[in-house]
Amino acid sequence: MKAISIGLLGLGTVGSGVVKIIKNHQDKLMHQVGCPVVIKKILVQDLHKNRSVDVDTGLLTSDANDILYDNEIDVIIEVMGGVGETKEYLLSALRRGKHVVTANKDLMALHGSELLSVASEHGCDLFYEASVAGGIPILRGLVDGLASDRITQMMGIVNGTTNYILTKMSTEGLAYEDVLKEAQELGFAEADPTSDVEGLDAARKMTILATLGFSMHIDLADVNVSGISKVTEEDLHYGKQLGYTMKLLGYAHREGEKVEVSVQPTFLSNNHPLASVQNEYNAVYVYGEAVGETMFYGPGAGSLPTATAVVSDLVGVLKNLRLGVNGKSAVTPQYPKRLKDNEEKYSKYFLRIHVQDEVGVFSEITSIFAKYGVSFEKILQLPVKKNETSEIVLVTHKASLTNYDSILLELKDMQAVREIKSAYKVVRKTL
Amino acid sequence: MKAISIGLLGLGTVGSGVVKIIKNHQDKLMHQVGCPVVIKKILVQDLHKNRSVDVDTGLLTSDANDILYDNEIDVIIEVMGGVGETKEYLLSALRRGKHVVTANKDLMALHGSELLSVASEHGCDLFYEASVAGGIPILRGLVDGLASDRITQMMGIVNGTTNYILTKMSTEGLAYEDVLKEAQELGFAEADPTSDVEGLDAARKMTILATLGFSMHIDLADVNVSGISKVTEEDLHYGKQLGYTMKLLGYAHREGEKVEVSVQPTFLSNNHPLASVQNEYNAVYVYGEAVGETMFYGPGAGSLPTATAVVSDLVGVLKNLRLGVNGKSAVTPQYPKRLKDNEEKYSKYFLRIHVQDEVGVFSEITSIFAKYGVSFEKILQLPVKKNETSEIVLVTHKASLTNYDSILLELKDMQAVREIKSAYKVVRKTL
Repeated sequence: MKAISIGLLGLGTVGSGVVKIIKNHQDKLMHQVGCPVVIKKILVQDLHKNRSVDVDTGLLTSDANDILYDNEIDVIIEVMGGVGETKEYLLSALRRGKHVVTANKDLMALHGSELLSVASEHGCDLFYEASVAGGIPILRGLVDGLASDRITQMMGIVNGTTNYILTKMSTEGLAYEDVLKEAQELGFAEADPTSDVEGLDAARKMTILATLGFSMHIDLADVNVSGISKVTEEDLHYGKQLGYTMKLLGYAHREGEKVEVSVQPTFLSNNHPLASVQNEYNAVYVYGEAVGETMFYGPGAGSLPTATAVVSDLVGVLKNLRLGVNGKSAVTPQYPKRLKDNEEKYSKYFLRIHVQDEVGVFSEITSIFAKYGVSFEKILQLPVKKNETSEIVLVTHKASLTNYDSILLELKDMQAVREIKSAYKVVRKTL
Repeated sequence: MKAISIGLLGLGTVGSGVVKIIKNHQDKLMHQVGCPVVIKKILVQDLHKNRSVDVDTGLLTSDANDILYDNEIDVIIEVMGGVGETKEYLLSALRRGKHVVTANKDLMALHGSELLSVASEHGCDLFYEASVAGGIPILRGLVDGLASDRITQMMGIVNGTTNYILTKMSTEGLAYEDVLKEAQELGFAEADPTSDVEGLDAARKMTILATLGFSMHIDLADVNVSGISKVTEEDLHYGKQLGYTMKLLGYAHREGEKVEVSVQPTFLSNNHPLASVQNEYNAVYVYGEAVGETMFYGPGAGSLPTATAVVSDLVGVLKNLRLGVNGKSAVTPQYPKRLKDNEEKYSKYFLRIHVQDEVGVFSEITSIFAKYGVSFEKILQLPVKKNETSEIVLVTHKASLTNYDSILLELKDMQAVREIKSAYKVVRKTL
């Protein structure tokens, strides 16, 4: 039977994994798609670099057009990363009727909608399971597995680097900077870790999840993002005492027709299924009106895990090819975008405040919360530290973001408040 | 656009959920499949019974032929349960070109292969996501999500009743009989709980999982089954001290070309992702050569969760119908069945033994293990209890089932051994 020819863009970490899986699992692929699968050409930057994977150097090219204009190539696998040039390559491939599998979250978060519509116009599949949470088949879970349900909430630990850092900080009581340095040495964090630790990487993935799960086109700019670089060991210590675990949490919530999406360091109650997701692992918690709580757990990155998702998408393309139904599976968003206003965003909050140790300060603080109708779940006033500074730790009941912001402003204005040391969202198991 | 007509067999717990979801999520279904979805007829035993769901009584019939012979009905949803008559209904429907969605694990475990082949002959879809782990889209996860990988291990908490009982026994220190009684009163356990507590229900689900995950036809009789009815609070107490949680664990393992499948009460190390799955929740842990560890978690039963899986399968049928590709998605097993022999099945074991408190007994016991080349990870000799009986608790390193069985026989033959109180498999996180 005629082999299917693949063009591979990129031969880095994920690309090498794709080559290995296609080679090692050829029998299984053949059994499923009914013909051999062959990588015909591979785009690389440097033809002479040493590779961690055994490939015929005759397959390598540094000219994308060798692949994009090769009429025998049916499917493009894009694992080179980047946004500008890469987008042009994929558009060019789709316009030539080539199906595309990509692991590129940046590209899909920024230009997914355009690429999907070009794919659909040209009867092409464009699959991107690997772009979110590496080896976890979460996009299929949302689109097919929960096809009949109305998803109202998705929470994700979708960045392995930050989860590794927070786990180490929490279990070993280390400072952020020390763990980051260790993670960089071990290869779990990049030399420039900004995109991970400031939450941008997670925000891209939440954009993709929210768009699919809510069937509503969400832009990256719609996501409220803050990172973990200011989280301290002390915060984690207090969290532990309260029964909380800190995670960089992607949070997407729908209420009625409106949604909110954010990425923030968040205290999860320890009995929440996401709280036990440790180290570099990822997990996505999905709440559907009918199904209730589900969770998908697995490796969020890495060569072979991510390549598994890429090649599973390839199997999807090839099955469609055999049936002649490519380009028909993308579902356009059902709803126009409607974002919640700040007064419609509710959460519990954890606050740690340093105040002057004076009579009446505590009551002044609680009266600010009372003014905005926000009550407390827990309050700890801790013994005087140095310089006559007391520490107050409190967890609120649910407050709107508007009220919370106003409270923070008033607290900062208070003479007796020396510093708001930290302020985090709190998420419990019960919705 | 012409509506798609559904025939529903059964209007019990799951059937009522199906009616509700099709009604409440009509917009989403319509958006995905492009036409209205209508339940045309419903098979029930008693036409006049009060129903928990609001249905037009004109839809009800007590004659299956009203549905099976109705040429306008495109898809049959089977949620009536049972094996004999139900199988005949489904065969008859498939032979008439009707697609089938079923939640029936008993039927699929016993006759899945035959039904799937009849479906394929007649160009019909036969989907059964709901038959394993209720609302968790695990079958899609295996077949599509991990399509490119070679799955070597699946471990499942796939019976909610037993997980509820073990969780309660462990957290509240209660006896098996007391928790079972409470579970029956709360509706979490059936009046005759045998199928759940003796592991048969879980074995049926593991048969389905192993067949799909290993691409090898596994029969129910191939599964070694034991239940939880003999698990005591004392066992759980010792497990806790050792850092273990007891689960009724479905275990499917492939090594080379051979597999083993079992359902047994098992001690999981507390850091295993399955150890924190509590109460009536289900989870399936899947290990693939490339992807590594993944886990799918969610509600294993219940009206709406199970119905979500059923209606998501229905969406799959309807999408195929629109594309004209029904009956093409089932993949026949790739491998002939090859089961491991007992000397190829390896595990660690937990043993609790009551012996006479005499000099030399301990050494006699350890020498039996040594004879079979089995060493220990942990040994506790506990203070003398009553009647000069000592208790010995030990955890072995990996032993073959053959050696383990021989050791148990020799231990039982020992004069000084009063009773082998309990013996369980032990599974740790590291494979």
